[in-house]
Amino acid sequence: MVSADPRVQSVFDDIRSTRNSDFVNNFWRALANQPPLLERTWSSVKEVMIAPGTLDPLTKELIYIAVSTANGCSYCVHSHTAAARAKGPSDQQLAKLLAIIGMAAETNSLATALQIPIDPEFEVG
Amino acid sequence: MVSADPRVQSVFDDIRSTRNSDFVNNFWRALANQPPLLERTWSSVKEVMIAPGTLDPLTKELIYIAVSTANGCSYCVHSHTAAARAKGPSDQQLAKLLAIIGMAAETNSLATALQIPIDPEFEVG
Amino acid sequence: MVSADPRVQSVFDDIRSTRNSDFVNNFWRALANQPPLLERTWSSVKEVMIAPGTLDPLTKELIYIAVSTANGCSYCVHSHTAAARAKGPSDQQLAKLLAIIGMAAETNSLATALQIPIDPEFEVG
Amino acid sequence: MVSADPRVQSVFDDIRSTRNSDFVNNFWRALANQPPLLERTWSSVKEVMIAPGTLDPLTKELIYIAVSTANGCSYCVHSHTAAARAKGPSDQQLAKLLAIIGMAAETNSLATALQIPIDPEFEVG
Amino acid sequence: MVSADPRVQSVFDDIRSTRNSDFVNNFWRALANQPPLLERTWSSVKEVMIAPGTLDPLTKELIYIAVSTANGCSYCVHSHTAAARAKGPSDQQLAKLLAIIGMAAETNSLATALQIPIDPEFEVG
Amino acid sequence: MVSADPRVQSVFDDIRSTRNSDFVNNFWRALANQPPLLERTWSSVKEVMIAPGTLDPLTKELIYIAVSTANGCSYCVHSHTAAARAKGPSDQQLAKLLAIIGMAAETNSLATALQIPIDPEFEVG
Repeated sequence: MVSADPRVQSVFDDIRSTRNSDFVNNFWRALANQPPLLERTWSSVKEVMIAPGTLDPLTKELIYIAVSTANGCSYCVHSHTAAARAKGPSDQQLAKLLAIIGMAAETNSLATALQIPIDPEFEVG
Repeated sequence: MVSADPRVQSVFDDIRSTRNSDFVNNFWRALANQPPLLERTWSSVKEVMIAPGTLDPLTKELIYIAVSTANGCSYCVHSHTAAARAKGPSDQQLAKLLAIIGMAAETNSLATALQIPIDPEFEVG
Repeated sequence: MVSADPRVQSVFDDIRSTRNSDFVNNFWRALANQPPLLERTWSSVKEVMIAPGTLDPLTKELIYIAVSTANGCSYCVHSHTAAARAKGPSDQQLAKLLAIIGMAAETNSLATALQIPIDPEFEVG
Repeated sequence: MVSADPRVQSVFDDIRSTRNSDFVNNFWRALANQPPLLERTWSSVKEVMIAPGTLDPLTKELIYIAVSTANGCSYCVHSHTAAARAKGPSDQQLAKLLAIIGMAAETNSLATALQIPIDPEFEVG
Repeated sequence: MVSADPRVQSVFDDIRSTRNSDFVNNFWRALANQPPLLERTWSSVKEVMIAPGTLDPLTKELIYIAVSTANGCSYCVHSHTAAARAKGPSDQQLAKLLAIIGMAAETNSLATALQIPIDPEFEVG
Repeated sequence: MVSADPRVQSVFDDIRSTRNSDFVNNFWRALANQPPLLERTWSSVKEVMIAPGTLDPLTKELIYIAVSTANGCSYCVHSHTAAARAKGPSDQQLAKLLAIIGMAAETNSLATALQIPIDPEFEVG
């Protein structure tokens, strides 16, 4: 199923060496028919999610799960929950993540239903 | 505009003392016509977002912003961005949050458009 | 701004006589540049929302508000909240609607985040 | 799979006695690893959906289905459709619910695509 | 499973003759219990998607896929991807569609997260 | 408000020369505080939306509007509607776009509400 396109092979090799694992998950395999999209997406994921930066790896995965849940992406919830678990969160941290996701969804819809005007205090000067 | 209902006064007092500020933002004022909903929502927000726990306060606000963005709640993006800024994030942390939100939205829609099957490796045993 | 197209005039006349009011809100005015879409949309709204049927008019508006909130349509929340208010709901009914919308959003996101498998009992035989 | 935490047992017992049935669906079982979230969510569901109030039980379920559909929660559509059916709606009522959900989604997106300004008549004074 | 209602038979016959195929997909079969909704939906689909007009058939299907992806409708992504493939797009066109869907989702969320004010240049006079 | 960061200046110069216009809209200005995100986003937009390819420029903008509408991004609907108009669509093409967006949203929600199983004919072999 994997394309013979050398760009695909090159990205897959980089995924394997970056993650230090032979496993390449279906998301990347599904993009193999679109080499430029595969290259651009992997390059961005590497820069945003893998390169060291000012948010720690677990926090980044928790945010990813939160967005994926709100967007209703079942595949992404599965893959990023697995990625988060690999980073060793406590059960309490995952429970808290769930609670925030649920509470945010609830208050989001209350604010939308009530069409609440934005407080001037929240406007950036 | 604030209801004379004693439950409303009690919640507003608790908001003020918990936050150590006289400011009560429009979200809570808009709920003042529904005292039971106001009480339940504030009680939950206190438990989830304010009580000390296993995720630090800034991380919790970043997750809240991420969900609010994905749910398209303008009011909530404003209020929780203000709440996050009050916790002193660096510009790099906020930039990284943005990058994750954007990238997650992109890969969420790619996974949905391609209807990618979930890898057996991601299924919890 | 209203088109001189006779189909537009005809729909506007029907809106006015059906609602027994001279007021034609911006939604219909915005569709006036697309007469076939205007005709089809009004015809459907009349059939679904105005023709007498098995759900009472207030219940139908509450459902419309719920969907419009979940879809984040500010205009629609405004217009259908006005339509619901014109049907004389009690404050308690509107408070309950809000509570359901918020709670459903919360449990929706919990179910999505946890990727809960559907109970066989819920499958239709 | 059910936690031995006494809070979990207590909530499950209450679910069974409140519903007068031994069946506890997967949603609650999935929350059993997060006892505080389980307790808070069940307490809210009881207050919002089960306690007698100003909206009848079937209407509440129809609103829940509408929100769950708009939020794309497959589990929730299944569970609340089952809950609605248990309350004896006519086929016409369910057909009307579907028609409203579909029509609201259509007009929501038309209003968003056209960026229709809110009529002053809809603003609350 | 198909209703004996003559309106259902009539719509199914029209689907078959319009598409010149015996295959009636599950979407229409699922609507067979609601004859008026079935009639209205098929009539609209015929007018919007099948009648010749100013957008070519493939472009219309690409737009349908884009909306269905953003709305997270798995069934619709499948059915309209099949419909698009039947119109003979090149692999490059489908890859480009994917790239646009993903990029739009990313920039949509960036614009929402940053609450970017609309440029006066974009307001219609 | 524009950063003195040379990367920002360089991207702004490229936006101006690529579009052959001095106008830089607020989206890019809002990203100026995050130079790496600005660079990556502009580079992707150039590759996806501006480089010549297998979908014509108007079709690409119509797809962008469709996604932005479904995602409820008001800024994006405004900016891409302006971009589409600059490419000279007929009124009929824009009316058809609206009709497809609305109809897709309607059928998306019907398919979700009915939890329609995917026809085997739609599964890719």
